Amino acid sequence: MLAVNPHYLSLQKSYLFTDIARKVQAVREADPGRRIISLGIGDVTKPLVPAVVEALRKASLEMGEAEGFRGYGPEHGYAFLREALARDYRELGVKLDIDEIFIGDGAKSDIGNFQELFAEDAVVAITDPVYPVYVDSNAMAGRAGLPVDGGRFSKLVYLPCTKENGFVPDFPRTAPDIVYLCCPNNPTGTALDRSALEAWVTYARMHGCLILFDAAYEAYVTEPGIPRSIYEIDGAREVAVEFRSYSKTAGFTGLRCSCTVVPMELALPDGRGWKVGLNGLWNRRQCTKYNGCPYIVQRAAEAVHTPEGRRQVQAVVAGYLDNASTLVSSLRELGYEVFGGVNAPYIWTATPHGMDSWSFFDLLLQQAQLVCTPGRGFGFAGEGYVRLTAFGTPEDTIEAVARMKAL
Amino acid sequence: MLAVNPHYLSLQKSYLFTDIARKVQAVREADPGRRIISLGIGDVTKPLVPAVVEALRKASLEMGEAEGFRGYGPEHGYAFLREALARDYRELGVKLDIDEIFIGDGAKSDIGNFQELFAEDAVVAITDPVYPVYVDSNAMAGRAGLPVDGGRFSKLVYLPCTKENGFVPDFPRTAPDIVYLCCPNNPTGTALDRSALEAWVTYARMHGCLILFDAAYEAYVTEPGIPRSIYEIDGAREVAVEFRSYSKTAGFTGLRCSCTVVPMELALPDGRGWKVGLNGLWNRRQCTKYNGCPYIVQRAAEAVHTPEGRRQVQAVVAGYLDNASTLVSSLRELGYEVFGGVNAPYIWTATPHGMDSWSFFDLLLQQAQLVCTPGRGFGFAGEGYVRLTAFGTPEDTIEAVARMKAL
Repeated sequence: MLAVNPHYLSLQKSYLFTDIARKVQAVREADPGRRIISLGIGDVTKPLVPAVVEALRKASLEMGEAEGFRGYGPEHGYAFLREALARDYRELGVKLDIDEIFIGDGAKSDIGNFQELFAEDAVVAITDPVYPVYVDSNAMAGRAGLPVDGGRFSKLVYLPCTKENGFVPDFPRTAPDIVYLCCPNNPTGTALDRSALEAWVTYARMHGCLILFDAAYEAYVTEPGIPRSIYEIDGAREVAVEFRSYSKTAGFTGLRCSCTVVPMELALPDGRGWKVGLNGLWNRRQCTKYNGCPYIVQRAAEAVHTPEGRRQVQAVVAGYLDNASTLVSSLRELGYEVFGGVNAPYIWTATPHGMDSWSFFDLLLQQAQLVCTPGRGFGFAGEGYVRLTAFGTPEDTIEAVARMKAL
Repeated sequence: MLAVNPHYLSLQKSYLFTDIARKVQAVREADPGRRIISLGIGDVTKPLVPAVVEALRKASLEMGEAEGFRGYGPEHGYAFLREALARDYRELGVKLDIDEIFIGDGAKSDIGNFQELFAEDAVVAITDPVYPVYVDSNAMAGRAGLPVDGGRFSKLVYLPCTKENGFVPDFPRTAPDIVYLCCPNNPTGTALDRSALEAWVTYARMHGCLILFDAAYEAYVTEPGIPRSIYEIDGAREVAVEFRSYSKTAGFTGLRCSCTVVPMELALPDGRGWKVGLNGLWNRRQCTKYNGCPYIVQRAAEAVHTPEGRRQVQAVVAGYLDNASTLVSSLRELGYEVFGGVNAPYIWTATPHGMDSWSFFDLLLQQAQLVCTPGRGFGFAGEGYVRLTAFGTPEDTIEAVARMKAL
């Protein structure tokens, strides 16, 4: 008899943002006079830059002309965009063949789908706190096991990132098959420096692990010792897949475009004594269950790589980083212990007086009409922290600080 | 040790369009003077209509303004588009709640991903010939078994569609759990009439099957007795998921937008004595591994539902149907046995003199510089046929007929 995928049933109900929305709504109704400021959801607020809008406009008109119209594009992505990305990587000293670059409709889709290429019994390690998509997509495939301990899964390996270890995950005693690393990190806003990343690449090479490297926030790196790509580390091509996104780089959260790099060296056993290249497997996955990113969106992404587009998006990123800097310095002045916010748009703020993260969330919402994200929502090790984002306007950011001061 | 998903290894290498491209290239090089006409690939050729281009242009400018910018959209799709689709369905007498409508980035993605919701041991039936995505996406999930007989899979149930059964699949003796029906059909260009579809809905209700109904070509239905939606049939809400696409309706093959309908009534056993609603499961899948169709593309799709947009896309579809009609009548005059082309953009043409489909492909390519798709590429029952598409220009279509006449 037909039944549902049993692994879907192991998923936790995802209440985090629903609960937040419900609480915010209650406060809004109770006091409609006072404006609520959200430093909660990790979505950008600034409009698309002029170079991107112009590229969209131009490509849209092209699609309305007999000569300019484009139907099905390559599932892999148009060469013009893959070449632009390869040039971008070369500036970091990273050489990629354009066939190693796949254009997608978002890092969330690409990361969520990539795990399909692995056997069901692969042992997966994730950091704690963590972006929930790594967990849920593996749970849906039966790789996470059963829920235990109020929120953890029986088969996942959890790598706590705490202030004690400087938010650098320790190596697990037994090597996992797959490790997800997000750097700069969502939610902690911290980043692995070159030596930490070198150590992870060495560990992966020694133990035959594959690193799935989520670089969605690479555009926010400001410090020289922080790699923007894992391929800046020697030997990473043999152990790492990298995911990039235009969402936070260029405000594409509503436009949808991403890049996944699968080096030709990556190959895994097929269980019959041979190895299979992951590049070919991912290509097969995308050709079967995906049909390419819209042409006009790829033209918009291409515009991000022009000198003009790059200047414009860098100014937007700089504005968000100014907000982050304001939050970090002001909160420190107020006596808060804060992390991140230097190479990332997130500020990981310890709750005062050992409050739990939901209680501090409630306090900020009730008494300052400020919305944050409780750290517990990202995992056990997120307890005692809240995530603040720098994606608001400068005015809202300054007002948020003033309200926290008045608490 | 980390290994690849073993089910991926059961996939047949997909040589069909690669082989075609290679042969076409060889002819092009041998005789650069003569123009090759393609009636092969099922991609549209006419540009986007003015109403769609204008919607894209307007939405692009909006995204460049502080007030108009939209970040993450609802994974489900914007209400404005789901409401437009619900109105469209109402004209067919079909009432849908907008929460039953999911906007996606293409019917290929939606159909390819939907099988994830089912247990691995679900028995899947497909027609033969068939759109390969149904087969490959199930093979990747381990539901197809092993390749046998030069191209078939051990666990799939094949439902031949031949001229003998009027291209209406017979009911399998043992009821499968899931049946894929594509209507109007790719590749045969035929369509199930109301009574055939009623019989399938009745069969599904009696045997507890789920029908995955691919209606990507519904815009091409011209005859009154042919349903455009499976929900025109009483009782279908309890047994069918429907997939619609803007690709062939409005030339969105390069723009990417689709609609998947999952009625609230659909629920499957969870193996623990309860039932789980498919609507909620699909929502969870999309919220975890997808991030919504671009806002500007959804505005473009909305424009297809305006009176002006509708008139414009209907004119385009009518043009393709004129090509289909030209092909059907001319090929019949030339003595070919042809099917389809009335409610669909495909003409399923029997090869002359019992030639196999690749030999006829070679003949057309070599002697008439015409590209078709060999029916064998779509399955066993496709042998002895080639698929011609009506998506060319009228001039090319007429020239193609002239060349076939001269053979």
